[in-house]
Amino acid sequence: MSIEQIAKDFTQKVMDDDAEGYQAFWSEDIVSLEPGDGPMTRVEGRDQLLQKHAWWFENTEVHSTTTEGPYVFGNQFAVRYGMDVTMEGERSQMEEVGVYTVEDGKVVEERFFYGTGE
Amino acid sequence: MSIEQIAKDFTQKVMDDDAEGYQAFWSEDIVSLEPGDGPMTRVEGRDQLLQKHAWWFENTEVHSTTTEGPYVFGNQFAVRYGMDVTMEGERSQMEEVGVYTVEDGKVVEERFFYGTGE
Repeated sequence: MSIEQIAKDFTQKVMDDDAEGYQAFWSEDIVSLEPGDGPMTRVEGRDQLLQKHAWWFENTEVHSTTTEGPYVFGNQFAVRYGMDVTMEGERSQMEEVGVYTVEDGKVVEERFFYGTGE
Repeated sequence: MSIEQIAKDFTQKVMDDDAEGYQAFWSEDIVSLEPGDGPMTRVEGRDQLLQKHAWWFENTEVHSTTTEGPYVFGNQFAVRYGMDVTMEGERSQMEEVGVYTVEDGKVVEERFFYGTGE
């Protein structure tokens, strides 16, 4: 499957809120990175990432999301996300870009860039 | 200057169409990458990149642009661009994400991800 097709299929599963669908693209050894120094900023392996997702959905009320893309370069693709969420009683609008690296048809790294706000 | 500030300043110069302003952030050894195999897909050094920009502006009529971001991860930032352009008589709407890598306050690499279209 071409990188373009993987990128499109993955992004469509995210848009459809089909967790099993997009998780099927995760490598067993997937590394998930986000900015900062906390324990959640580097997660290694499918099991840890499933736990992180479970934590997120338990602790967050998602009011709406937007998903734009994908955009492809080589074996990588990018997706832009917008989220209107309430966490710990505080509602906020977040914007981020996810950059995904693909090897052998699977996502081996996801790296989230955060909007700097205004 | 923090990566957040560099990202914001650079993106503002792009929004302002201030070429001298954003080019001031380019390292002398900047590498500029876009998808594909052509001669323009890997450009090395400020002089070559200035030539590429000159070529682009000579050969393209830009009707409108959108710029969203920046989004920051570590020493990198991402910007999402939309462009309505005419090249060689053909008008098209392009979407892309630029991922910029910063070292010592300068952009040492820019990498453009292209929208896959529909």
